Amino acid sequence: MNIAIVGIGLIGGSIGIRFKESNFCNKIVGVEKNETNQKKALQLGLVDEIQSLQEAIKSCKVIILTVPVDVIMDLLPGILDQVTDQVIIDMGSTKSRILDMIKDHPNRGRYIAAHPMAGTEYSGPEAAIKDLFKDKMMVYVEASKTDEDAFEIADGITDQLEMQSSFMNAQEHDMHTAYVSHISHLTSFALALTVLEKEKSQGRIFELAGSGFQSTVRLAKSSPDMWTPIIKQNRANVLEVLEEHIKQLQHVYDKIKMEDYTAVHKWIKKSNKIKRIIK
Amino acid sequence: MNIAIVGIGLIGGSIGIRFKESNFCNKIVGVEKNETNQKKALQLGLVDEIQSLQEAIKSCKVIILTVPVDVIMDLLPGILDQVTDQVIIDMGSTKSRILDMIKDHPNRGRYIAAHPMAGTEYSGPEAAIKDLFKDKMMVYVEASKTDEDAFEIADGITDQLEMQSSFMNAQEHDMHTAYVSHISHLTSFALALTVLEKEKSQGRIFELAGSGFQSTVRLAKSSPDMWTPIIKQNRANVLEVLEEHIKQLQHVYDKIKMEDYTAVHKWIKKSNKIKRIIK
Repeated sequence: MNIAIVGIGLIGGSIGIRFKESNFCNKIVGVEKNETNQKKALQLGLVDEIQSLQEAIKSCKVIILTVPVDVIMDLLPGILDQVTDQVIIDMGSTKSRILDMIKDHPNRGRYIAAHPMAGTEYSGPEAAIKDLFKDKMMVYVEASKTDEDAFEIADGITDQLEMQSSFMNAQEHDMHTAYVSHISHLTSFALALTVLEKEKSQGRIFELAGSGFQSTVRLAKSSPDMWTPIIKQNRANVLEVLEEHIKQLQHVYDKIKMEDYTAVHKWIKKSNKIKRIIK
Repeated sequence: MNIAIVGIGLIGGSIGIRFKESNFCNKIVGVEKNETNQKKALQLGLVDEIQSLQEAIKSCKVIILTVPVDVIMDLLPGILDQVTDQVIIDMGSTKSRILDMIKDHPNRGRYIAAHPMAGTEYSGPEAAIKDLFKDKMMVYVEASKTDEDAFEIADGITDQLEMQSSFMNAQEHDMHTAYVSHISHLTSFALALTVLEKEKSQGRIFELAGSGFQSTVRLAKSSPDMWTPIIKQNRANVLEVLEEHIKQLQHVYDKIKMEDYTAVHKWIKKSNKIKRIIK
């Protein structure tokens, strides 16, 4: 079986590493617009060869889309127009709009919406790492609308990546990811900017930055080309969670302002319940 | 030389581990109100014996304060009243109010304000770990007001802990820590609460939480008994940074609301400059 990876960055490249390691397929074809990244992907051995998207659709049984979600929106209808028995797996971070767009496509059954809950703050082919997916969660979204044979192939890939799996509808998926992924990125971007702004008047401000700061701010290294489309496609949920988060911050601001430290203590203690979730 | 550690938790206990390992002192005396923690500290071998604060002031050359900053405020004047040639090292996270309180004390010279920029989200004697301080920064605050012999002893301890050192005035220290430590905790508490609130109506919300979420929320496990006094003592700086941070979040909220994704992209890209700071 030949497999094409469209977009050879952190996700696509890490899939390539795993497939090569396990000899899972005959050939891994890379589809990549950026010429520098094409060369890097070949040099790093993430894929066996580079083809155009048109060639890859013809030569591969499975096409995995790991480009930013706006590019997935652009490419997907045209790809579906051309498939016969191929399997198209979309690994983007938002699902409602994409699923809505192709819901009536005659080849809808060949498409599977999957979201690997794995990543780092880095992007591009050099960001690809071994075991990125191991023991992480692959979320299948509206999997019941995918043909059974196509789903089996996609699920085989999930097994190859050593991932667990879960099923959700599109609305659920997009709301959940807004709360446990998208907002984390937004707070990190905001925190980085808060301190970078202060640095302008206070040169040494980062000197005391330790592991706590690093931990809350590391996601601010994430790519705007990847994250802007995610925010755009998940606008309503992102606005909801942002509003709630700002409310929490405004609440503690008000309590500190009025010197109600009993309320501050209570607020922190309540947040400690996260221990139940995060080991 | 006998050394007393007042408050045997994450910081105090980790100092104990390092001193024992390096045979730095004759005896490590633990001062600890909580009886369960006394027992744990002895069982874990963090200290050699438990004494009362009064006994420890008499029997030890160095008294290291690693209790919450409100307790340091309560204890410090009484300790300074009793010292002759002992050295009192305060390792709390805020400095302006404490330094202001004891600035005219006749034994001011025996006191050194130091802040080890090291920690984890855990507290109590079991949280103590080897190498917590290694290669981290010890910040001396208003060190020029400490007697030279006392400073030399404190600096020897910093060396023993394998730390680097830096000097600051109190105002600078408290403002810098608000920006690179205290705000990180506040955003983490707020983020944990945002999602915990959502969980009430959406049982499965944490199912997709991955490493990004964990990273931004882990500080929300931090102790309210430690953090409420820090916020209280650093109120003005904390309010300033909170206000700035809320402004950043409100800014991106507004841009998403008005669907100005060019501005969102620009905002994220600007935050990426944090790469310069965080490796």
